[in-house]
Amino acid sequence: MAALSALRTVNRRGLGLGRREFSEKIAMVGSGNFGSALVRILGRNALRHDVFDNEVKMYVHEEMIDGVPLTKLINENNENVKYLKNAKFTPNVVADPDIASAVSGATMICFCLPHQFLKPMVPAIKAAAAPGAKCLSAIKGIDFDENGIVLISDIIRKELSADCSVLMGANVANDMASDAFCETTIGYKDPANGALFQLAYDDFSLKVGTVQDTVGVELCGALKNVVALGAGFCDGLELGGNTKAAIIRIGLKETMKFAKMFFKGIKDETFMESCGLADLVTTCFGGRNRKCAEAFARKEGTWDEIEADKLNGQKLQGTITCKDVMVVLKNKGVEDQFPLFKRINEIAFEGAPVETIIEL
Amino acid sequence: MAALSALRTVNRRGLGLGRREFSEKIAMVGSGNFGSALVRILGRNALRHDVFDNEVKMYVHEEMIDGVPLTKLINENNENVKYLKNAKFTPNVVADPDIASAVSGATMICFCLPHQFLKPMVPAIKAAAAPGAKCLSAIKGIDFDENGIVLISDIIRKELSADCSVLMGANVANDMASDAFCETTIGYKDPANGALFQLAYDDFSLKVGTVQDTVGVELCGALKNVVALGAGFCDGLELGGNTKAAIIRIGLKETMKFAKMFFKGIKDETFMESCGLADLVTTCFGGRNRKCAEAFARKEGTWDEIEADKLNGQKLQGTITCKDVMVVLKNKGVEDQFPLFKRINEIAFEGAPVETIIEL
Repeated sequence: MAALSALRTVNRRGLGLGRREFSEKIAMVGSGNFGSALVRILGRNALRHDVFDNEVKMYVHEEMIDGVPLTKLINENNENVKYLKNAKFTPNVVADPDIASAVSGATMICFCLPHQFLKPMVPAIKAAAAPGAKCLSAIKGIDFDENGIVLISDIIRKELSADCSVLMGANVANDMASDAFCETTIGYKDPANGALFQLAYDDFSLKVGTVQDTVGVELCGALKNVVALGAGFCDGLELGGNTKAAIIRIGLKETMKFAKMFFKGIKDETFMESCGLADLVTTCFGGRNRKCAEAFARKEGTWDEIEADKLNGQKLQGTITCKDVMVVLKNKGVEDQFPLFKRINEIAFEGAPVETIIEL
Repeated sequence: MAALSALRTVNRRGLGLGRREFSEKIAMVGSGNFGSALVRILGRNALRHDVFDNEVKMYVHEEMIDGVPLTKLINENNENVKYLKNAKFTPNVVADPDIASAVSGATMICFCLPHQFLKPMVPAIKAAAAPGAKCLSAIKGIDFDENGIVLISDIIRKELSADCSVLMGANVANDMASDAFCETTIGYKDPANGALFQLAYDDFSLKVGTVQDTVGVELCGALKNVVALGAGFCDGLELGGNTKAAIIRIGLKETMKFAKMFFKGIKDETFMESCGLADLVTTCFGGRNRKCAEAFARKEGTWDEIEADKLNGQKLQGTITCKDVMVVLKNKGVEDQFPLFKRINEIAFEGAPVETIIEL
C-alpha cells in the first residue's frame, strides 16, 4: 500500500511537470527459465504502461543451438526456444548477447541469473546503465563469506551503488509460461522504486504484493530450498501429508527465527506473503530440491550422483545453502535453536539416518 | 509455555499435598476415524503418566458389524475395525455404547463427533461426569444461528457449564494410525487445563503446540474446508502449483481477517501453528473437500451427486460452511473484503464459471 501511494506521488509529480521528461527503460540480465518467464511479463507491461519505454532488452549468455545463436532464435521467434518453450514474448522484448548494449541507458535493471556470474559483469553494467538506475534481484540464493551471510541484493547495491528491490514468490516458471495465475512478492527499500517495479510486473496472471523488507523476502527465497530437502526426505520415507505439513510449518518458523536473529527490521507479515508460505508450499511439493532429497532418502546415490541424474545440468541449491547456514549457526553457537535445519544437515552430510527427520 | 508452567504449578501443588488425591479420568465421546486416532494416543499416555487414571473410556454409537456389536469388536480386538483399521489400541481403551457409563466420573471429556449429535447427549453427560469436568473439542466445523456464528466449543461450555479447550491440526487420521509424525494445536482458555490436555495428547508421534486462543484455533479448523474447495477448483482446472499456493495463502489471510472481524483476542501466531497453515496445506492437497471440488470443476455432477459418489457416506463440510460464512459476511455487508470466499461461493452455488477462481 505504501508502495502504491508512493507511485501515485510519482505520477502526480509527473503530471505537475506538464510533460513526460523520460520513460523508464527496463533491462533483464539473465535469460534462463525464470528470467524468461519474468521478461515475458515485463514486455507486456512495457507496452501497456506509458511510464515505460516500449523496448525491453534481455541480456542472454550466448550459445549456439544447432549452429544458430540463441539470441537470433529468440528474436526471430519471440520465444526463448531453449529455456522457456511455447511461451511467446511480445516483439518488444529484444535479446542481446552483449551486456553493455543490453543495459545501455537502462533505468530499471532486473537480475535473474546464477549469482556467481554477477560480479564479472559489474564494470560493464556500471558503465552502460543510466546514472541512478534502480535494480531488482530475482536471484534466489544467498552467499557467505568469512564474516557470515552475504545477501545477493547487497552485492548489487554495493557494486553498482544502486537501490535494489527483490522479487521472490511461488513462481514455477513453466506454469507462468501458460499464464496460470500466481502471486509474487516485491521487497523494497525505496517506496517509489518498489512501486515502479510493482507496476512493471503486476499483470493479469501475476499479482504482485509488496513489503518494505528486502531482507526477509530474500531470505525466504534462499532458505526454502533447505526446508524442501526435509520435505523430500519425508516423501522418500512415504510419511504422508501430516508429516510434510509439519516440516513445512516448522521450516517457515525457523526461517523467521533465522532472519530475525541475523538481521534487523524483519517483518512478520513478510512470511505470510507469496515469498513466504506460498513459495515454501510450492517448493516442498514440486521443485528440484525436494525431488533430489526424495531420491537421497531412497538411497539412490550421493548428492552429486543424484544431481547429475535428475537435474539435467541444473544445480542443486538446497544442499549448498544448508551447509552454509549450518556454518553460520555453529559460528554463533545457536544450531540447537534450529532443530529442523540441524537435522536436515545431519541427514544430508553427517550420515544420520533419514528416519530421524521426524525426531524434532 | 504458559500452559507448561501452569502444569508445573499443578504438579507442585499435588506434591505439596503429600499424596495423590485423585487421578484425571479421561473419556472420548466419539469413535469415528479421527476420534479413534486420538483415543489411541490418549490410551498410551494414560498408561505413561501418573496423573491420569489408566482406563480411557470411548463412547461408541453402537452399530452391528456382521451381527456383532462394534463395541464388542473394538474391545476384543483392541482396534476400531470399522473406522480405523490396522491401528491397535492399548487394552486400557474401553469402548462403551452407553454415554452415561462412558463418561461416568470423567474429569476430562474429549468430543470428536458430528456436532449435530452433541446436544441430545448433554443431559446424560452432565449427570454422569465429575463435577467441574474439563472439556476439549476436536470437532471441526462451526454452527450458525439467527445471531451469526456459533462455535461448537461455546455450545459445550454453555450446555455443560464447563471450561473447554479445542484441538485442531494437520491430522489426517489414517496417517496417524501408522504413527507417522505430526503436530497438532490445543487452544485453551484455562492454562492448567490446556497443560493437562497437552500432557494427555503429546506423544512421540504427535507433537502438541498450545496457544491461548480457542477461537482462532477453532475457526482455522472450520474455514480450511472452504479454502479447500478453492484448491480443488484449481486442481480440476489443472492450474499447477503456483496457483494453488496462491489460493492457500489468500485463504489463510482471509481466515485471519474473518476471525479478527468477528471475534476479539485472536492471536496472529495461531495461524502459524499446526491448526493454521499446516492443516490448510494438508487439507488443500489431500482431503475430501478438495477432492469433491476437483470433481465439481470437472463437471462430474451436482454437489449432492459428487458427495454420494466420492465420500462413501461421509458428509461434505466445506460447502455447508461456505454458505453459512457467506450469510454472515453478507449480513455485515463485508463480502467484498473476502474476495476468495466470495468467489468460491459464487462458483459453488451461483453458477459462476470455475475459471473465475483466479480472478481475485
